[in-house]
Amino acid sequence: MTARPEALIERLRSIVGDEHCLAREGELFAYECDGLTLEPQRPLAVVLPAGTSEVVDVVRACRESDVAFVPRGAGTGLSGGAHATERSILIECSRMDRIVEIDAANRLAVVQPGVVNADLSSHVASLGLFYAPDPSSQQACTIGGNVAENSGGPHTLKYGTTTNHVLELEMVLPDGSLQRFGSRVGESAGLDLLGTIVGSEGTLGIVTEITVRLTPIPQAVETLLAIFDDVVAACRAVGRVIRSGVVPAALEIVDRRTIEAVEASVYAAGLPQTAGAVLIVELDGHPVSVSAEARTIREACEASGCQQIEIARDEEERKRFWRARKGAFGAMGRLAPDLYVHDAVVPRMRLPEILEKVGEICDRHRLKLANVFHAGDGNLHPNICFDRRDADELARVLEAGREILEACVAAGGVITGEHGVGTEKRDFMHLVFDEADLEPMHRLRDAFNPDGVCNPGKIIPTTRFCVEANPKARGYDRVPLG
Amino acid sequence: MTARPEALIERLRSIVGDEHCLAREGELFAYECDGLTLEPQRPLAVVLPAGTSEVVDVVRACRESDVAFVPRGAGTGLSGGAHATERSILIECSRMDRIVEIDAANRLAVVQPGVVNADLSSHVASLGLFYAPDPSSQQACTIGGNVAENSGGPHTLKYGTTTNHVLELEMVLPDGSLQRFGSRVGESAGLDLLGTIVGSEGTLGIVTEITVRLTPIPQAVETLLAIFDDVVAACRAVGRVIRSGVVPAALEIVDRRTIEAVEASVYAAGLPQTAGAVLIVELDGHPVSVSAEARTIREACEASGCQQIEIARDEEERKRFWRARKGAFGAMGRLAPDLYVHDAVVPRMRLPEILEKVGEICDRHRLKLANVFHAGDGNLHPNICFDRRDADELARVLEAGREILEACVAAGGVITGEHGVGTEKRDFMHLVFDEADLEPMHRLRDAFNPDGVCNPGKIIPTTRFCVEANPKARGYDRVPLG
Repeated sequence: MTARPEALIERLRSIVGDEHCLAREGELFAYECDGLTLEPQRPLAVVLPAGTSEVVDVVRACRESDVAFVPRGAGTGLSGGAHATERSILIECSRMDRIVEIDAANRLAVVQPGVVNADLSSHVASLGLFYAPDPSSQQACTIGGNVAENSGGPHTLKYGTTTNHVLELEMVLPDGSLQRFGSRVGESAGLDLLGTIVGSEGTLGIVTEITVRLTPIPQAVETLLAIFDDVVAACRAVGRVIRSGVVPAALEIVDRRTIEAVEASVYAAGLPQTAGAVLIVELDGHPVSVSAEARTIREACEASGCQQIEIARDEEERKRFWRARKGAFGAMGRLAPDLYVHDAVVPRMRLPEILEKVGEICDRHRLKLANVFHAGDGNLHPNICFDRRDADELARVLEAGREILEACVAAGGVITGEHGVGTEKRDFMHLVFDEADLEPMHRLRDAFNPDGVCNPGKIIPTTRFCVEANPKARGYDRVPLG
Repeated sequence: MTARPEALIERLRSIVGDEHCLAREGELFAYECDGLTLEPQRPLAVVLPAGTSEVVDVVRACRESDVAFVPRGAGTGLSGGAHATERSILIECSRMDRIVEIDAANRLAVVQPGVVNADLSSHVASLGLFYAPDPSSQQACTIGGNVAENSGGPHTLKYGTTTNHVLELEMVLPDGSLQRFGSRVGESAGLDLLGTIVGSEGTLGIVTEITVRLTPIPQAVETLLAIFDDVVAACRAVGRVIRSGVVPAALEIVDRRTIEAVEASVYAAGLPQTAGAVLIVELDGHPVSVSAEARTIREACEASGCQQIEIARDEEERKRFWRARKGAFGAMGRLAPDLYVHDAVVPRMRLPEILEKVGEICDRHRLKLANVFHAGDGNLHPNICFDRRDADELARVLEAGREILEACVAAGGVITGEHGVGTEKRDFMHLVFDEADLEPMHRLRDAFNPDGVCNPGKIIPTTRFCVEANPKARGYDRVPLG
């Protein structure tokens, strides 16, 4: 534990107000990690600014005291992107939760970063609009955090990820200057940094206002649930659906182990014991086209040997179908105290072999595995249940995780689909990038965050190379300044 | 005229071969401008490399001789992005025209930058696939040039621009190093530069290989042509279509002056003399949904007071409808020797007032104006017919252009929709950005192209500020080195 910079904390209190600067031991406990619960680290203090100008003042105060700062949304991220380092201030954006403007005619909303994802859709529902990106944590996660992680969700296949819905951003740069990127009309003249900032995990600055696209609520939604003997057959159906030219809103597979866990839990969806894999297909759009597409899906599933296929008759049944998918994380929580939610992408056609390989890896390490995945996107989520108090099991979890990522990369995939790199995957970046490949990322980060004071230690692996390349780096992520 | 660097030209000849290095006066004539014919400038030489390694060698040779280089595709760009400066080498990519790989299962193609846009779609048509971005110049323009300009086209409304279809890029950086960005699976770990490179107009490096998404050819296409009394009524119909939730593949408006020019030309589409504006709507997708959507479009047009609405009965008629739009540029060519194709975006709802304002500006400057526009995107193309040999008229064209851009910006728009900034709009960047706004663009460009040796003088206005901020800048775009 290094000494607290009392003068800085006093200054932060004067900026955000006493009650919005947390620095006592008990207050900091909840902020020692995000959804990645490995390697927790308590920050020096947590500030909850009320608006952009307070963020600017906090950043300037930190810089002047040579203390790093880490932006944080709701802390639901799964790769440690909002983890503090030993000598950093957390800037928590939950008080900046105002929906600043709704422009229904141009279908856009201006929001502060602390607006909860699902709240925006509720707010504009009466206008016939919704905000399309829907991470599984959408009841809790914030749009600012979604921007940092470029969050996806079950409906990514049709609607894309956060980056496809962000029109304009206001950001406080690590030097304390305030900038806007993009434009309300969706076009921007000159060099376009918007797509680089979305998904940069808070390493280029702190986003303080976001203009997003709103999407018309589809006139009709049909949800189908198809039951297969095994995951390979379900993947075959996915291939047929994609080849048919229909683009479902969602195309999700749940494997046998997940089904067993869900059926044994309060989320039980009433699936038969013979279910070896479940494919959930959601279609939306014009009522006539949705009905036609549902027939195509039914044919694709039948041609792939499904045991049975059902179409939800009402909203109640639709929710029941989705419980098989959305209840998965809760259900697995019953199996062990800790859950490691992995995330990687492979080419869609390689899914069956990768799932087999992932199963083999976890069996060999004697780990409980369940798979749910965004099959349409080739985005895997192998979930490993474990108990972190068992050091041997924890070591096996980490080793299995490494092997899973290596297998995905060997199949032509990448190490993260939608959860980001953060601290979790940082040292796996070498699986896909050599030093020369990382060089452009260094150049970009150094252009905005040359000394690494803003969210240190995330994304880019720290190597001898990068210290040499960047003499300005002050090692915020390595050596306590104390 | 500055002295030719003979030693460099000899070295370039040895890299690409004598016949692929053009340096004689007569050979250079065709390369003195792209589709922006104002301010032509002959390069020192034009090289046509055969592949990536030759591009690397050319870039290194230029660097060692302290000579700038400018990448060029087919030269169909309209903002001068491929204009040479007095002391630069043009790197023309037309010989790099190989389709390297088609992966139908994963719906992607790997191409060299010189592949002509329309050729890729022809090549994969038998697989039931096409390459969606379709700039009006698609019979000539290359995919490398499309990447540089982030080209759109009539089908942007549904399919997006080039950036939505690029998965991975190989690029030679201005220092001669070779890098890859993005990945075949559409996800990339770490800081994502792909979206910044697409549309950076060749100022960050020279793209040498492109992996693009392919899209299934829709099962059905319906094309509707609706005739209105005036542009305001046609814009009203566009608003109704958008509010209905239908997303047409294209939603284009042609104004009265354009109709008159087209009808007087070989492109005549048989439009009635009463036509004050034509709205072309193209729908694609499942046959059942397309029919249902066509009914919605018909209702929206009728509710907005259209004179008549027709649905193309066959491919022949569909082509005839599109002649009203695609023949516009050719038809206007009959009216005067030169045509200035303007490009700007405004919020869709502001289109009627902006069109009125644009008409008023051109009337006041006694200029012949015709409007065709991507109404669904709010993307205007005011086309001014003129004769550049008439110095007074040319001055009025430039003055009117400035006023049009100012009016679009005042209406909440930006200065370019799909044609880029290049040299044409560079000095208008100040209409939307102040020096502080341009700072992140400087930082980004300086991270990759610190001395401005790669495509100098494009996008970012040259000011005292940026010389101060970037002591490494050698002024490739300002002072002849000779």
